[in-house]
Amino acid sequence: MSSEVARIVAMPVEAAAAAGRAWRATPAADRAIVLEAVADALLKHADELWPVADEETHLGEARLRGEVARTASQFRLFADVLRDGGWVDAIIDHADPTATPPRPDVRRMLRPLGVVAVFSASNFPFAFSVAGGDTVSALAAGCPVVVKAHEGHPRTSDATAAVVRQALPDPALLGLVHGFESGAPLVQHPLVTAVGFTGSLAGGTAIQGLIAKRPDPIPFFGELGSVNPVVVLPSADPAAVATGFAGSLTLGVGQFCTNPGLVFVPEEGGYAEAIALAVAETTGGVMLTDKIHEGYLRGLVRLDGLERLAVGQAGPSQGAEAARVFTIGLAAFVDGLPGLAEECFGPAAIVVKYLDKEDLPDVLRRLPGSLTASIHASSPDDTAGTSGDIVEAVTGLAGRVIWNGWPTGVAVSWAMHHGGPWPATTNAQHTSVGATSIRRWLTPVAYQDWPDALLPPELQDANPLGIPRRIAG
Amino acid sequence: MSSEVARIVAMPVEAAAAAGRAWRATPAADRAIVLEAVADALLKHADELWPVADEETHLGEARLRGEVARTASQFRLFADVLRDGGWVDAIIDHADPTATPPRPDVRRMLRPLGVVAVFSASNFPFAFSVAGGDTVSALAAGCPVVVKAHEGHPRTSDATAAVVRQALPDPALLGLVHGFESGAPLVQHPLVTAVGFTGSLAGGTAIQGLIAKRPDPIPFFGELGSVNPVVVLPSADPAAVATGFAGSLTLGVGQFCTNPGLVFVPEEGGYAEAIALAVAETTGGVMLTDKIHEGYLRGLVRLDGLERLAVGQAGPSQGAEAARVFTIGLAAFVDGLPGLAEECFGPAAIVVKYLDKEDLPDVLRRLPGSLTASIHASSPDDTAGTSGDIVEAVTGLAGRVIWNGWPTGVAVSWAMHHGGPWPATTNAQHTSVGATSIRRWLTPVAYQDWPDALLPPELQDANPLGIPRRIAG
Repeated sequence: MSSEVARIVAMPVEAAAAAGRAWRATPAADRAIVLEAVADALLKHADELWPVADEETHLGEARLRGEVARTASQFRLFADVLRDGGWVDAIIDHADPTATPPRPDVRRMLRPLGVVAVFSASNFPFAFSVAGGDTVSALAAGCPVVVKAHEGHPRTSDATAAVVRQALPDPALLGLVHGFESGAPLVQHPLVTAVGFTGSLAGGTAIQGLIAKRPDPIPFFGELGSVNPVVVLPSADPAAVATGFAGSLTLGVGQFCTNPGLVFVPEEGGYAEAIALAVAETTGGVMLTDKIHEGYLRGLVRLDGLERLAVGQAGPSQGAEAARVFTIGLAAFVDGLPGLAEECFGPAAIVVKYLDKEDLPDVLRRLPGSLTASIHASSPDDTAGTSGDIVEAVTGLAGRVIWNGWPTGVAVSWAMHHGGPWPATTNAQHTSVGATSIRRWLTPVAYQDWPDALLPPELQDANPLGIPRRIAG
Repeated sequence: MSSEVARIVAMPVEAAAAAGRAWRATPAADRAIVLEAVADALLKHADELWPVADEETHLGEARLRGEVARTASQFRLFADVLRDGGWVDAIIDHADPTATPPRPDVRRMLRPLGVVAVFSASNFPFAFSVAGGDTVSALAAGCPVVVKAHEGHPRTSDATAAVVRQALPDPALLGLVHGFESGAPLVQHPLVTAVGFTGSLAGGTAIQGLIAKRPDPIPFFGELGSVNPVVVLPSADPAAVATGFAGSLTLGVGQFCTNPGLVFVPEEGGYAEAIALAVAETTGGVMLTDKIHEGYLRGLVRLDGLERLAVGQAGPSQGAEAARVFTIGLAAFVDGLPGLAEECFGPAAIVVKYLDKEDLPDVLRRLPGSLTASIHASSPDDTAGTSGDIVEAVTGLAGRVIWNGWPTGVAVSWAMHHGGPWPATTNAQHTSVGATSIRRWLTPVAYQDWPDALLPPELQDANPLGIPRRIAG
């Protein structure tokens, strides 16, 4: 059986590798045109795509149409990235025969790795799935992709792949495999050169173990879990904090890796009370899959010893889940670490009440890594005193720090960083959202004294593509 | 015993972490001044440093003085890198409230990770040791360092650390531990955030295993082993190839990670014969340590079934080793893979004779990853026919590709890439030599809607440091 699965997985991997030879040789400007064609195709087929996804995920038309648009816009962003040319990070040192020792001509740029395996996420059936950020950044880099479809939306995955393939010069550039058991042979196939993953800590750890057993360990970019701490300083407006938090907590039934799971509020000032009122007015919904729902219920058991601050309304749908918010004092919270800082995927959070903001930096430093960390305050001056400390503690905790905002919603842009210290990601030095996420699928090559005629155009003397380059020698 | 070692290792790690808080907050321009002071101190103390290293390594005055100078020049390069400011990779997206959804202000830059553990190499007692490339790039990044001294040159390590510390604002920024058994507690200390390593495949694999057992796996940048294939095309001049090869093979008694261990030459044209003559005239020397010498002899046993092409002269020193070159036909070489492509650290190489250059690309694709790969030809046209194939195969094989040159000697410059596919390095996406090696010790942070007054100066609106930034929003 397992060798049969391996045989089935090998087919798209080998086809992708073969198709990848022409793709990596395709000029970046031509790859950009293909990416835009994919964006057009996704938008053109949005009417057919979103209903399939809605049946499988219950996320609703508005959210799913928005997600298709976001997915298309990611393809457009990477078309811009390719045209800009800075993504190859070209650096040229001219020869210096007078140096001791004489310095050769050295020219460096980034080149595509090879077949990329992508494990898609349950909670974004488009934006972190078959045509999601991992796939588009890999295709942009010049790498073919084989996606392991998420079990939560197999038909959406097939439908998306069909749409994307129409716009690709070779449909084999986007392979698709189904089923939990196809994951292991995929990451262990000799032709796979890197893996992108969005999912659970357990799943990510398992894949990392499989990769470690390869004769040639390959790069693994996993986004695993995050509690996204929010620090509310005493100058923040309680009503605004409560409304914003309740909205962020319950968006998408709390099924975001950026969901705010820990909120530190002053004991005085009515913050907890305002939050309780706002959360009580929220409406829940049906979770993505039974497995995710069960995981959420197990997570709630872990929080059972805490004081209940608020429960939202479940809403009319059968099996819908309500938001649940617990509360605890700062000292007791610290006693409950690390367990209390574990992600509970869904609309649950802990409101931690503190007496003195000076105590916060030490507690923040004891938290596990997160994708985001936020500060709410009416003025930067409220960080004064422990200021540097709070800002520094928050910055050391997460890859994206947010001022007076909520972590859900990740702008797809040039500067965005979506990553953070373990366990938020397996590789805190790379991002899975934004223009620089292309670097995950690239490796540098330095050409020493290489003939101009054999250099890639990006490094030739005449700079025929007109890309930005650092001339340093 | 092992807990006693862990206690001893913990002291410099904790001291480094404490000293690191002020160091990371030190403006990059001030860190640059410190790096230049270290360079000055190294040069000033060269007269005392090289004799200690010579006693421990037998590398001789000329080589060791040159290496101290190279080590100092690495500190100067990173001072330039810090002043340039491009190393923080600053990207700014301005807010766009009219976008759907509204786009926040997002500003990204790279920030130092924390304490870096460095395992120094046997074969470069200065340039890849206590004050080597890993240490200087980490200090430049704003990270304190704890070095595991190589057992081959403990006194050189102590002497170098003493010189460097004089020039540091806090001597604890450079910790030093000795002994094989201190390696494990060092990479497993909770305050260590990344590891740099130059050494053997076995050693690197062991460290990677230790890191995988951490509750928070940290980045590991290991440089492990490389055969550095050289392809001699039929238009190359046999005499020049033979002289160049013999010199590169025997430099430093062959103890370089960039030593040319595999040379593909045309069967016709007198290449093998010219190489035999040139190698026979070389003089060997004493190897760095008994352990390395024993490893070399074990490696020779592996090659024992091959035809002997040439043996150099050992030279006058007691225990000196001579260069040994073996030869084999292309088909038999392929039959002997992967064993025949394993690194044999020392002055040994295999000359592989081919009849048809069209056969080379397929064979090159079957080789393990290397730090370098070279092509020798009188004209780029000699790559024609299989041209794209040979160039592409060579480029996929190694992180640095060299035209009509030899791999030993790595220029320390902005564009240099010293890395390659496994097993050359554990992380082919990063370099251990050159300006971009600083990125190993950095992680991105994105500031979303962050108040200007609390932003690092690199991201403030006024750009007070005047660094290069990408403004994209």
